[in-house]
Amino acid sequence: MCGHHVIEHVRSKMLSRRGVLTGSLGAAAAVGGTALLAPPAVAATSGGTLTDLTHTLSSDFPTYGGEPGIEMTQVFNFADNGFNLFNMDVNEHTGTHMDAPLHFSADGQSVDELPVATLMAPLVKIDIAERAADNPDAQLTPDDIDGWVSAHGDLPESFIVAMDSGWSEKAGGKGFRNADDEGVMHFPGFHVEAAQKLLETGCVGMAVDTLSLDHGPSADFKTHYAWLPTNRWGLENVAGLGALPASGATMIVGAPKHRGGTGGPTRVMALV
Amino acid sequence: MCGHHVIEHVRSKMLSRRGVLTGSLGAAAAVGGTALLAPPAVAATSGGTLTDLTHTLSSDFPTYGGEPGIEMTQVFNFADNGFNLFNMDVNEHTGTHMDAPLHFSADGQSVDELPVATLMAPLVKIDIAERAADNPDAQLTPDDIDGWVSAHGDLPESFIVAMDSGWSEKAGGKGFRNADDEGVMHFPGFHVEAAQKLLETGCVGMAVDTLSLDHGPSADFKTHYAWLPTNRWGLENVAGLGALPASGATMIVGAPKHRGGTGGPTRVMALV
Repeated sequence: MCGHHVIEHVRSKMLSRRGVLTGSLGAAAAVGGTALLAPPAVAATSGGTLTDLTHTLSSDFPTYGGEPGIEMTQVFNFADNGFNLFNMDVNEHTGTHMDAPLHFSADGQSVDELPVATLMAPLVKIDIAERAADNPDAQLTPDDIDGWVSAHGDLPESFIVAMDSGWSEKAGGKGFRNADDEGVMHFPGFHVEAAQKLLETGCVGMAVDTLSLDHGPSADFKTHYAWLPTNRWGLENVAGLGALPASGATMIVGAPKHRGGTGGPTRVMALV
Repeated sequence: MCGHHVIEHVRSKMLSRRGVLTGSLGAAAAVGGTALLAPPAVAATSGGTLTDLTHTLSSDFPTYGGEPGIEMTQVFNFADNGFNLFNMDVNEHTGTHMDAPLHFSADGQSVDELPVATLMAPLVKIDIAERAADNPDAQLTPDDIDGWVSAHGDLPESFIVAMDSGWSEKAGGKGFRNADDEGVMHFPGFHVEAAQKLLETGCVGMAVDTLSLDHGPSADFKTHYAWLPTNRWGLENVAGLGALPASGATMIVGAPKHRGGTGGPTRVMALV
């Protein structure tokens, strides 16, 4: 999955942070007379880092349709029952989440059928934040892919591509959906021609930091229909891409695995 | 997070599988006149592998309480709507899943508060399958931890421990819950004294291939109460541990991240 240079890079970064320890993962808890801190964890440093790329999911998180994407119901609580437990009512396409091929096809792979080998791969991050700041309907085009290759060399043998439009920082407010008076949303996405160009590469998955692989005003979902039915997957609402390098990170995709699912909330991380 | 030897091991294994390609990730799809196979993925080999340790989640999957843990409702379908989408009603503690510290504490970390640095770490796999085959109530004890150290050397600085009781293979049938006529379940788990011993190490998380960190007949959840309130986490119903080495694998934990959650279905993988 990972090319030689990626593994070398990860290795050197991981070595560089050995011995950089924080004191604790959190508060100590006194249980049965025993008070023990959680063990030390390796801290994020300016060197090697396991970075979380996942927004915290709640009923406040903006959704494509505008309705809350998750509702939690507490079934058991610690005071009365000795433990806490919730039921979750979740729209699959909520928060930082996977679009499995089945989402936009009649018989593409469901989320439990995704080949695990595609869930960890070198990350090609393409930054269009400057253009998106001027034009919320900006699209990532074939020229942007060519620009990445010019700056960083050949595309890896197998990789995940991510659009960094700077949109992640808007996730707390109305600017994330950015709907106009007619309800049409305005946020960046992949142009269908970029998707078509990527079909000719070793790209296994496409990630965006916005609500949709297609840009907000799309009425025909051309990018979804070009990409997902070929048994490649997508990730939407990815967080924190701004902190990652354009080349050299490895993305880890903790996709859900419910039978027949079309996607679902996903823990996304990167090793840099 | 990962020690030097682990990264070296991962690196050498990943390099050994470069160039071992399968032809396709799945069936080709014809879309808009373009028929393109999904790109080649690196196949699992007897050398390096990214292994899935996650059971497929469905309403048939056995649960601790015995009721179905997930219900899926199709909201949109491809024939009528041009895309597929489900709502999921999910008990957090269903399938291969995370127990966050908050599950068995008043104020421990919720699943969105887990430090990301703990979600990828060297795996210490302790095999008690032979004993569990004779006694379904078998427990992993401090002696088993000492045995691992004798055979494989010092525990890593920071690590995840997993009990491999061979139980994963029973997941399709009644033998997984293994309830007797009185409804008492019989399956292996961690003895509380093993949990207490692990509190003195750099262990960040505890995984089992059964329905509970405590063994089936436990009425007092001693291991849950000893472990989770210290802001260490647990994983239950982990699959596929039998294929992993006792030492040298790295576990990757794609925990969910809903605000205030006590756990949830989790994609678990290992790099070997």
